[in-house]
Amino acid sequence: MAIKQHEKILLTGAAGGLGKVLRESLKQNCTTLRLSDVVDFGAAAEGEEIMLADLADAAAVDAMVQGVDAIVHMGGKSLDGPFLPIMQANILGTYNLYEAARKFGVKRVVFASSNHVTGFYRQDETITADAPARPDGNYGLSKAFGEDLARYYFDRYGIETACVRIGSSFPEPRDRRMLATFLSYGDLHRLITACLTTPALGFSIIFGMSNNSVTWWDNSRARHVGYVPQDSSDVFREAVFARTPAPDFSDPAALHQGGAFVRMGPYEQ
Amino acid sequence: MAIKQHEKILLTGAAGGLGKVLRESLKQNCTTLRLSDVVDFGAAAEGEEIMLADLADAAAVDAMVQGVDAIVHMGGKSLDGPFLPIMQANILGTYNLYEAARKFGVKRVVFASSNHVTGFYRQDETITADAPARPDGNYGLSKAFGEDLARYYFDRYGIETACVRIGSSFPEPRDRRMLATFLSYGDLHRLITACLTTPALGFSIIFGMSNNSVTWWDNSRARHVGYVPQDSSDVFREAVFARTPAPDFSDPAALHQGGAFVRMGPYEQ
Amino acid sequence: MAIKQHEKILLTGAAGGLGKVLRESLKQNCTTLRLSDVVDFGAAAEGEEIMLADLADAAAVDAMVQGVDAIVHMGGKSLDGPFLPIMQANILGTYNLYEAARKFGVKRVVFASSNHVTGFYRQDETITADAPARPDGNYGLSKAFGEDLARYYFDRYGIETACVRIGSSFPEPRDRRMLATFLSYGDLHRLITACLTTPALGFSIIFGMSNNSVTWWDNSRARHVGYVPQDSSDVFREAVFARTPAPDFSDPAALHQGGAFVRMGPYEQ
Amino acid sequence: MAIKQHEKILLTGAAGGLGKVLRESLKQNCTTLRLSDVVDFGAAAEGEEIMLADLADAAAVDAMVQGVDAIVHMGGKSLDGPFLPIMQANILGTYNLYEAARKFGVKRVVFASSNHVTGFYRQDETITADAPARPDGNYGLSKAFGEDLARYYFDRYGIETACVRIGSSFPEPRDRRMLATFLSYGDLHRLITACLTTPALGFSIIFGMSNNSVTWWDNSRARHVGYVPQDSSDVFREAVFARTPAPDFSDPAALHQGGAFVRMGPYEQ
Amino acid sequence: MAIKQHEKILLTGAAGGLGKVLRESLKQNCTTLRLSDVVDFGAAAEGEEIMLADLADAAAVDAMVQGVDAIVHMGGKSLDGPFLPIMQANILGTYNLYEAARKFGVKRVVFASSNHVTGFYRQDETITADAPARPDGNYGLSKAFGEDLARYYFDRYGIETACVRIGSSFPEPRDRRMLATFLSYGDLHRLITACLTTPALGFSIIFGMSNNSVTWWDNSRARHVGYVPQDSSDVFREAVFARTPAPDFSDPAALHQGGAFVRMGPYEQ
Amino acid sequence: MAIKQHEKILLTGAAGGLGKVLRESLKQNCTTLRLSDVVDFGAAAEGEEIMLADLADAAAVDAMVQGVDAIVHMGGKSLDGPFLPIMQANILGTYNLYEAARKFGVKRVVFASSNHVTGFYRQDETITADAPARPDGNYGLSKAFGEDLARYYFDRYGIETACVRIGSSFPEPRDRRMLATFLSYGDLHRLITACLTTPALGFSIIFGMSNNSVTWWDNSRARHVGYVPQDSSDVFREAVFARTPAPDFSDPAALHQGGAFVRMGPYEQ
Repeated sequence: MAIKQHEKILLTGAAGGLGKVLRESLKQNCTTLRLSDVVDFGAAAEGEEIMLADLADAAAVDAMVQGVDAIVHMGGKSLDGPFLPIMQANILGTYNLYEAARKFGVKRVVFASSNHVTGFYRQDETITADAPARPDGNYGLSKAFGEDLARYYFDRYGIETACVRIGSSFPEPRDRRMLATFLSYGDLHRLITACLTTPALGFSIIFGMSNNSVTWWDNSRARHVGYVPQDSSDVFREAVFARTPAPDFSDPAALHQGGAFVRMGPYEQ
Repeated sequence: MAIKQHEKILLTGAAGGLGKVLRESLKQNCTTLRLSDVVDFGAAAEGEEIMLADLADAAAVDAMVQGVDAIVHMGGKSLDGPFLPIMQANILGTYNLYEAARKFGVKRVVFASSNHVTGFYRQDETITADAPARPDGNYGLSKAFGEDLARYYFDRYGIETACVRIGSSFPEPRDRRMLATFLSYGDLHRLITACLTTPALGFSIIFGMSNNSVTWWDNSRARHVGYVPQDSSDVFREAVFARTPAPDFSDPAALHQGGAFVRMGPYEQ
Repeated sequence: MAIKQHEKILLTGAAGGLGKVLRESLKQNCTTLRLSDVVDFGAAAEGEEIMLADLADAAAVDAMVQGVDAIVHMGGKSLDGPFLPIMQANILGTYNLYEAARKFGVKRVVFASSNHVTGFYRQDETITADAPARPDGNYGLSKAFGEDLARYYFDRYGIETACVRIGSSFPEPRDRRMLATFLSYGDLHRLITACLTTPALGFSIIFGMSNNSVTWWDNSRARHVGYVPQDSSDVFREAVFARTPAPDFSDPAALHQGGAFVRMGPYEQ
Repeated sequence: MAIKQHEKILLTGAAGGLGKVLRESLKQNCTTLRLSDVVDFGAAAEGEEIMLADLADAAAVDAMVQGVDAIVHMGGKSLDGPFLPIMQANILGTYNLYEAARKFGVKRVVFASSNHVTGFYRQDETITADAPARPDGNYGLSKAFGEDLARYYFDRYGIETACVRIGSSFPEPRDRRMLATFLSYGDLHRLITACLTTPALGFSIIFGMSNNSVTWWDNSRARHVGYVPQDSSDVFREAVFARTPAPDFSDPAALHQGGAFVRMGPYEQ
Repeated sequence: MAIKQHEKILLTGAAGGLGKVLRESLKQNCTTLRLSDVVDFGAAAEGEEIMLADLADAAAVDAMVQGVDAIVHMGGKSLDGPFLPIMQANILGTYNLYEAARKFGVKRVVFASSNHVTGFYRQDETITADAPARPDGNYGLSKAFGEDLARYYFDRYGIETACVRIGSSFPEPRDRRMLATFLSYGDLHRLITACLTTPALGFSIIFGMSNNSVTWWDNSRARHVGYVPQDSSDVFREAVFARTPAPDFSDPAALHQGGAFVRMGPYEQ
Repeated sequence: MAIKQHEKILLTGAAGGLGKVLRESLKQNCTTLRLSDVVDFGAAAEGEEIMLADLADAAAVDAMVQGVDAIVHMGGKSLDGPFLPIMQANILGTYNLYEAARKFGVKRVVFASSNHVTGFYRQDETITADAPARPDGNYGLSKAFGEDLARYYFDRYGIETACVRIGSSFPEPRDRRMLATFLSYGDLHRLITACLTTPALGFSIIFGMSNNSVTWWDNSRARHVGYVPQDSSDVFREAVFARTPAPDFSDPAALHQGGAFVRMGPYEQ
């Protein structure tokens, strides 16, 4: 699916872990890839442009958004922690992003949501995107807010969003939980490409996972997105089992989908 | 699945677009293929017999049906248009067909229904066969009637029917919408064969589509039919994108599953 | 609820059983009540006007509809029987009515549908309006068509309809089945009034029954209509039990919601 | 239900419209009623104590919460408007409140959520508490956040919350929409009392409405709360109809549950 | 509802707590009331006959059942305890009862099931009869078995059963949990009468509770039974609250619907 | 998936048809495979140990269970027949097994349940694991009991169980029904391995079938188990059709999922 449908795509969080990965792969999807992050991360390569912005700064976000066709929003805090910085980056920051999209006529957003929106479901439950949010911390709460915000901007202004609840996107799964949540870099790109190019996206929530045998998530309500994973955690299964202990269910992290996030905090303000 | 379980199958609408396709492939499914349409379409080949009939003519329909084991009902109007001709061919015509099936003991029908029964759902919704009908015009209304009729003849007389809501069955998808609705000729035949040979068919509604990545339909309630598509619109995706514009959602045809049908009509009576 | 919100309401089927009842009570709902039926039924009283029409005659239906604010459509065949007359009166007739409503800008219709749309459900099942249609004969089929038609005219043209699946509207229940399906004349009027006056009606299906203890129908999806029954079959229960035999479940009429309709027909064409 | 189960209840937003109402009625529910708001609102009466606090000030919120048995959280912004003040009062403010509840061992909260969490549903839809949030503005978004936050504090720390999605709580309904959303002051108090005293509250969402005939909300999943409304908008229906125009569906406010909120904004930051 | 539809009804468990209550009230429902229990409990009054039987003794059960029109099965163990006696009385005993019903043509049974079939649901959940069984001990397991057995005898032999999941049927509620589960003696009789006389009972599961404000159960799928409670625990609410402590959720009995049953056992065999 | 996660697994029913199959394949899953059955079946091979036990004998079952890490419970009656032996082996026997598991700390069980738990569903219905039990005989009833028992031991004691509703596990399908229910020996082992090794099993019900095109079962709620079938009945389809007659729906065995079981019995006690 090397379909190049957009002229200029904005990738926020471009200096982050997944941002670096997508900086490479998203080039196929557009003529120019605009990269942004909060701090300097070097120079633009060919086909790129760079525009730094603090997401909590509305004017900077306006500048960052103006002139693009679509947004892949990976920016903001991506770990759990004290509430205020998360509120600034993920709640106010995402609000600023959508306001800018509204003002400058951007009609499609891929929003990096998270499995931590539903982290308090158990690992023996299979959920769909309609399952009510059960966030597992400040980070999950901020992502749940972002999803509701995206819904509002679709209902009110027609801006389409795919909320991609990213599982665990790493080169390979690090523990038994990630056998279920694993999303390969290739599948991450395939998923974002599907969201960018499907004819009607509407407001969609889709779990970001590869074709793992063990899973807790059911994407059957997002078939219109057209995401077909091609990788799987299964090839890592034996190795992961060999180097990790069996789950101890007296630890809530072993029982819930959010893993260790469900026992993080509370934090000093 | 070259299983030949029937002695004589009736194919109505044999001179139509899909009728011509099925005239070839359905020969594998029976000893004799009885072909019918409303106007003369030439001579019978070996293993065929031809019996013309106006579906609105009950006596002609009786004659057409008598002596067959199963019916593949592709006949009637297949486009939207003024109500009266559609009522005659698709409402009265299908009524006549089921009455004949009842009188002459035909126990299984494959009924060519249409995605236009649910054409007013949005393209960002995934629906199952249980979703209430939302027809997108006179044609869709007539097919919704046919499905209800089939349900009645099953509940009352035990005649089994598969209502196949055909998507877009052409050599290849013509536009972006058809990437979702595409049903290859091979899959069309596979689907009808599955309906004809599954042990218990009951009253089933099944969406007729190939294994397309982007889709709006969920056939998980029709697993007993055993249809497994082997083709996909995905191979045409890049070409279709290259030659067609991005959707303009101010056009209701771009937003709804029924495509252009949702803005056809009204018609002069 | 003696709210008079309409200037002129059209009541079709005004000479029928329920038409006569509503001719009296609907006067409260409008300044002028236009009455129609297929054959002459006498002179108009004060506040009434009479306009005869064969529902299958599009021009006559146009004339009948022009100039009214709302329609209460009780007309057409109200019993099971051969298909053709039902098709003319209930399928073509209802099509003509909605076309006229579209042409002359009528924005709200109360459509007398029937419990025979779902007559093949069992009497030990509780269904909502979302349960797929299971018509119990030609009459039920024609009403299922009318509901789909109303859905289309709402999706396409914004005409609001309440499909009232009338149970058994008589002075009192005649048998044990009617203890469940009973709709008093007072509740019939209350229900139609609710449909005519609720702010947003949309496309709604509502089962027409009084507050009977034994019932098979769940109106919880039509709360926006605001119908609150005030009568009940319960006061007739002992008398009905005393004069009727216990059900014999070897008779399909005893087992299904449609009662005797489920074993009527087939009919000579 | 004059059950006094708590020693000291905190009522936030005590100087607001509903705060003043509850200041009177909640006295029955506790020995001491602690009142709070952001600005001075006079002296404490007998059985009261007053503790002012800006909800965005964590230390002040801690002081406000310490020492109470239960919280009725009516504080914060209660109208739509620019994002930043709503974020401070309703997002950060509610976060501070739950952190304080966690620190000081308060185990039950009644949270004044709002029908604007689901304001973008249509008025012809009936929804339950499981329907995904469809906020209709910044205010609705902040309340959706509060609900997710409450869910988290229940899943993680066992603090029970009733999210009461208050409809329109005024002396009487002001327009046709409020006939559906009306919550009398008496029923408001009954509902909060039920939430405070039901044995197991868990995390519950309940729509705050009186026993209105026309409604869009289904509280059947909150039966464990034991709320039984005793008032109804029906007594105001004729008067409201007499003084207000029929809905004009070309106005989105007439079509959606949130009413005029759905077309407020956007706001200058 | 003093409808006497049966000639002879068998009441098992007639010497038990509820048996004694029903011995009085069920006389209205039949000409002769046959009473049974495992040990002698005195002489028959007028309109009664007594037939002792050990439920585990198939021949005795046959004799007990022969000649009756309907069965109200209150017999067997009604408390949790070691498995073997419960298996003999409730599993084998109920099997013997249905075998006898089959052999002697009894077509309707009211089976005293129990809320302990679903005792492991939480008290902040509302469940319908379709919620999967979550028994809370040996007693609940035996009742779940009885329900499955009744389903089988309906599917296979057409014997209709109402599985009445009795809550807490006492003169008044004894603790806070019973405010939700209370079933007055009058409502118990009304419920059994409804089950005995509704035209089509089929296989139904219905929660046996009065019209209590706080409840965990939703009987909306059993409307065809026609049970309308007339009593409520609400009149006892203040008194119960006054004499019982607030729930301590560290005790699983306070959190689950089954109350103290959820922490009974394990038992020495 | 040759993951060996257990030290010692107990396989009951080791001398039965599937027991013999699993005796070979389960050796990969543990260091020692303890085999049990009710009668002598020869000597232990290397890596095996043998411990005979009558499941109805609690002391013998205790001895059988003590010292193992996990249990694959294939033992008991596996055919329909008179109630008492099935009650002893499958009801009392399974109770004894779970009591032993509780006493000796076994935390995971794979329980051989059966499609006969839901045998009275029709072959044209697709069901999930949440569909209420509809057993088709004494055998199916005993397996439904076992599932409820497993649920209880999970809710109360945290013992995880996979209830595997085995379809038809034979070298190849014997008739047309088995085309839907076929479970190859390889897939049986894959399924049990998945159940033994998935991180969180909880209480799960999973239908045991290969990747057959025609099926009646939907395992989408058991994705956390991670079972991926690799075989299919499809390769046998033509041969089965060639040697077996078309279904005769006047035979209930042709219509229901349980096949011939639905018309077995009644039995002499």
